[in-house]
Amino acid sequence: MRQSQILLNTLRERPSEADTEGHGLLLRGGYIRQLAAGIYSYLPLGRRILHKIEGIVREEMERAGVQEVMMPSMQPAELWMESGRYGSYGKNLMTVNDRHGREFILGPTHEEAVTSLMKNEVSSYRKLPVKVYQIGTKFRDEKRPRFGLLRGREFIMKDAYSFDISEEGLDLSYRTMFVAYNRIFARCGLRFKAVEADAGTIGGDGGSHEFIALSAIGEDTVAVCDHCDYAANLEQAETAAWNGEIIGSGAAETDSDTPQADRGGAAAEDAPLPEKFHTPDIRTIDQLTAAYSLKPEQIIKTLIYRVDGNSIAVLVRGDHEVNELKLGKYLGAEDIMLADDSTVAAAAGVISGYVGPVGLKLPVLVDYAVEAMTEGVAGAGERDYHLQGVRPGRDFPLTRVGDFRNAAEGDSCPRCREGRLTLHRGIEIGHVFKLGTRYSGKLSATFLDASGSERSMIMGCYGIGISRLLAAVAEQNAGEGGIAWPDALAPFEVQIIIVSIKDEAQAALAEKLYGTLRELGLEVLLDDRDERPGVKFKDSGLIGAPQVVVIGREAALERVEYENRLSGVKETLGFDKAVLRIKEHVKNNRI
Amino acid sequence: MRQSQILLNTLRERPSEADTEGHGLLLRGGYIRQLAAGIYSYLPLGRRILHKIEGIVREEMERAGVQEVMMPSMQPAELWMESGRYGSYGKNLMTVNDRHGREFILGPTHEEAVTSLMKNEVSSYRKLPVKVYQIGTKFRDEKRPRFGLLRGREFIMKDAYSFDISEEGLDLSYRTMFVAYNRIFARCGLRFKAVEADAGTIGGDGGSHEFIALSAIGEDTVAVCDHCDYAANLEQAETAAWNGEIIGSGAAETDSDTPQADRGGAAAEDAPLPEKFHTPDIRTIDQLTAAYSLKPEQIIKTLIYRVDGNSIAVLVRGDHEVNELKLGKYLGAEDIMLADDSTVAAAAGVISGYVGPVGLKLPVLVDYAVEAMTEGVAGAGERDYHLQGVRPGRDFPLTRVGDFRNAAEGDSCPRCREGRLTLHRGIEIGHVFKLGTRYSGKLSATFLDASGSERSMIMGCYGIGISRLLAAVAEQNAGEGGIAWPDALAPFEVQIIIVSIKDEAQAALAEKLYGTLRELGLEVLLDDRDERPGVKFKDSGLIGAPQVVVIGREAALERVEYENRLSGVKETLGFDKAVLRIKEHVKNNRI
Repeated sequence: MRQSQILLNTLRERPSEADTEGHGLLLRGGYIRQLAAGIYSYLPLGRRILHKIEGIVREEMERAGVQEVMMPSMQPAELWMESGRYGSYGKNLMTVNDRHGREFILGPTHEEAVTSLMKNEVSSYRKLPVKVYQIGTKFRDEKRPRFGLLRGREFIMKDAYSFDISEEGLDLSYRTMFVAYNRIFARCGLRFKAVEADAGTIGGDGGSHEFIALSAIGEDTVAVCDHCDYAANLEQAETAAWNGEIIGSGAAETDSDTPQADRGGAAAEDAPLPEKFHTPDIRTIDQLTAAYSLKPEQIIKTLIYRVDGNSIAVLVRGDHEVNELKLGKYLGAEDIMLADDSTVAAAAGVISGYVGPVGLKLPVLVDYAVEAMTEGVAGAGERDYHLQGVRPGRDFPLTRVGDFRNAAEGDSCPRCREGRLTLHRGIEIGHVFKLGTRYSGKLSATFLDASGSERSMIMGCYGIGISRLLAAVAEQNAGEGGIAWPDALAPFEVQIIIVSIKDEAQAALAEKLYGTLRELGLEVLLDDRDERPGVKFKDSGLIGAPQVVVIGREAALERVEYENRLSGVKETLGFDKAVLRIKEHVKNNRI
Repeated sequence: MRQSQILLNTLRERPSEADTEGHGLLLRGGYIRQLAAGIYSYLPLGRRILHKIEGIVREEMERAGVQEVMMPSMQPAELWMESGRYGSYGKNLMTVNDRHGREFILGPTHEEAVTSLMKNEVSSYRKLPVKVYQIGTKFRDEKRPRFGLLRGREFIMKDAYSFDISEEGLDLSYRTMFVAYNRIFARCGLRFKAVEADAGTIGGDGGSHEFIALSAIGEDTVAVCDHCDYAANLEQAETAAWNGEIIGSGAAETDSDTPQADRGGAAAEDAPLPEKFHTPDIRTIDQLTAAYSLKPEQIIKTLIYRVDGNSIAVLVRGDHEVNELKLGKYLGAEDIMLADDSTVAAAAGVISGYVGPVGLKLPVLVDYAVEAMTEGVAGAGERDYHLQGVRPGRDFPLTRVGDFRNAAEGDSCPRCREGRLTLHRGIEIGHVFKLGTRYSGKLSATFLDASGSERSMIMGCYGIGISRLLAAVAEQNAGEGGIAWPDALAPFEVQIIIVSIKDEAQAALAEKLYGTLRELGLEVLLDDRDERPGVKFKDSGLIGAPQVVVIGREAALERVEYENRLSGVKETLGFDKAVLRIKEHVKNNRI
């Protein structure tokens, strides 16, 4: 394509609306434009990349035996009431009322629609298993759309669904999709992790994995073992009793003016009882550690939660965070929230900041890492006082001990027990779920099995954020002057820059190269504009073709400058040699 | 693909929801399923055909230098207010309110969105012309969705837009698109006409053509000359003063009991004055012609219209229909409607059915065909009476004569004046418009021209109903047992049917053929199901592959039955000969 013909308007400066580097470069390079908050148009460069992602997805879906369908965006609200998600999705649903007053959901996902479809198409086990997918637009009324394509209100998804006659069948479908997803993300050139995950509002309890593209701007955190292949998202990553060092017996730096959290040497039975110390206006871990030279891991944090109308206390180490999902699973409760100040005061008898486990008249849940402490500092249950030398088991009961916190950097791996966990930020680009009969049961999607009995189909569902994937690749490859697109997604495989279009030798050589490369079936962009070289080079960075050929002063000698953006190599080459280099690179990088 | 693996559930009977033959076969063949009125899912067979249509469209758009973009469905309502279409589209707009109460239009078309996009991307004449297109979902809140995909509420469109610096530029863009559209529809195997059309709610007055697929179930009527290449939709087709025979001088059959509309021999000045005759309870053309053996073309029909608050009379021949669009253009009025009974009585002094032009105290618009009558029968302006021998010019004034009616079968061609018009029903599958500055003016989409002056971009817009095109092809090719898809769109190029999968020779030969054809790059469907032959042949008809190979009794002799659905030829052939036939057919029909 000739650059003089393409609709491409690059911006010199990063627009103020851009809140990440990748988003800024997508705007500057003329890939996308915002029409309203979280709603984008794709210009030709952006559309080309979407096509490439969609092409890879379609190839891998076909390879995995998944058939393409297309379901409508508008779905009768009744379907979502039947599944029970009309309520649980709440304000995130975009809804339309037609002229007759009938309400429709603009699908953020299609479990209901596909289940209702299959219910009518499939009646016998002989037609199962079936796997279908579609690529299309989804809608979600995000409270705060942000990060460009990463959290939009209208976006492009690939969603797939499997229907099996048994759990074993689902296992196989799930594995097939899991493999296909790994292939897709690898082919797109992403650095990613497949991690164990929670099923969230999609539901189903058979298992779930997220695919996370590693990126500092990601909204997800994943825990990855440095020894085995364990990886899980932060909500899901397990921690265990034997996890980490035993705190309290280490060599924390202390001096005589500060309360002693560490009495390492003394045997537990001889240890003095907890000792109160005056901590006026000190109500946070940060204040406590700063004022008394304590480490957060020497502190026992006591939090009051409301669980289905009752108050309970949860103890975690000062450097740890309570994981409400784990709490919910342990208690078998859905409605869990941190108590507000007045509830805390009423339940614990003291304002928050001074609540502690000693003498507390509430059920107390103790995290494994607290159980493992010899002793620690905790709230005294009395305003303006804390206690030091609080001993788990002696000073408060260890009747309810479990995994109640998020994993932390340095935790032992719960899988191999040898490695340590490292935490990484990332962007969720895919998610696979074992749904079981979560939807087929509610929507009566049944089949007759070999014995003639009616049974619910066993379902799985599998999503990839296509537009989000584009954004994730942009974030991972964002550099100083633009996005260095991986070969498989670059809008053009090669860019040819004519330094001066008025120079006949340059123009002629460029046209010759353009023709030669196009005949080889390559996607080539020829910068034939009458612009200053500086402008052309800047734009070239923003377009990010993996290979660039600059045709300048040595054109009369049939020599060009060849640059490989991925390797960083720049060479001056004869015409034939340059063509050979380009062919080789493409051959080695087409996947 | 193996038929045992594909998601395909054919129906024995035409479902009651199907209101056309093509729609019935699309449902029976498992191409589409209705989720709600006018809202459909595409199953794998339907999705495959959509891909083929989209592929042809993309190729022709690229050939025409049109760049692909993608704009969002959700468009801020303010944009539609700026363009003035928020009101004119009225209840046909699907709207969404987000959680903050901001209103969005779900785009039925994208003139506003693309104009607002270009306004920011293009500032100089040096970046023009530009042509862009997208393929995507549109929404329209149809009052009565019907005919399956033909008039739906959620449908797939290709919409394109051109931006030029001058009218000449627009002419060129328009012609380029016009040619591309002809190529697209021809490649899709459609029988169609490009006709002159009205711009409707899209607006612009520079010109417009509709592409109409001929079909008896179509909602549009087109007038086509049998001599030259003139074609126009009924609303737009011109009629002229010299049009048709002079009525009144012909040899209408009459007898002495009936009023004489025909006094052919008498000179106009000698003709007797109109004569009243008693017509109790006769208020329609049908009643009048039946009771007095008149022909509709002997009657002068007088209709009262309300135009911007005033009443006027329009005279057309009894066999003609008033064209309100033409009326509006003649009067320069937008708000035109047929008067209700009480308005008629007040304005004309008599109940409707007896209104006539003689002595009428209203402005009278006379259609050319009435002007051309020597004399006719008309209402008497008095209850229960009509007049015969009413002479235009003598008995009512010919001060406002023009083209106020729809063209009719047999009219002279307004272009060549030699041919006659024939009328055809058809389905609108495409529409091209010269918009001029209709949108760029209102949305301030300007550019700086070569002299540095700011001017509005000159726009065109160009639509193809992708899902509607699929339905139109289905209607045109619907037969007894299924849709005989044209080669370019068929979901599979070849189908192989194994008569009995338990016969090893049949199964082996079928697998060999399946492998051979797939290696040739053909799309092959292998019916490997354990079903009765009757079921397989019925399903084969519904799938409609252009070539079918049946592998039956002669399999052991390596002989197969080859059927070409388009030519109707059935032959028993040896294996190699059959492969050759298939290759030849595909070679000759790939376009």
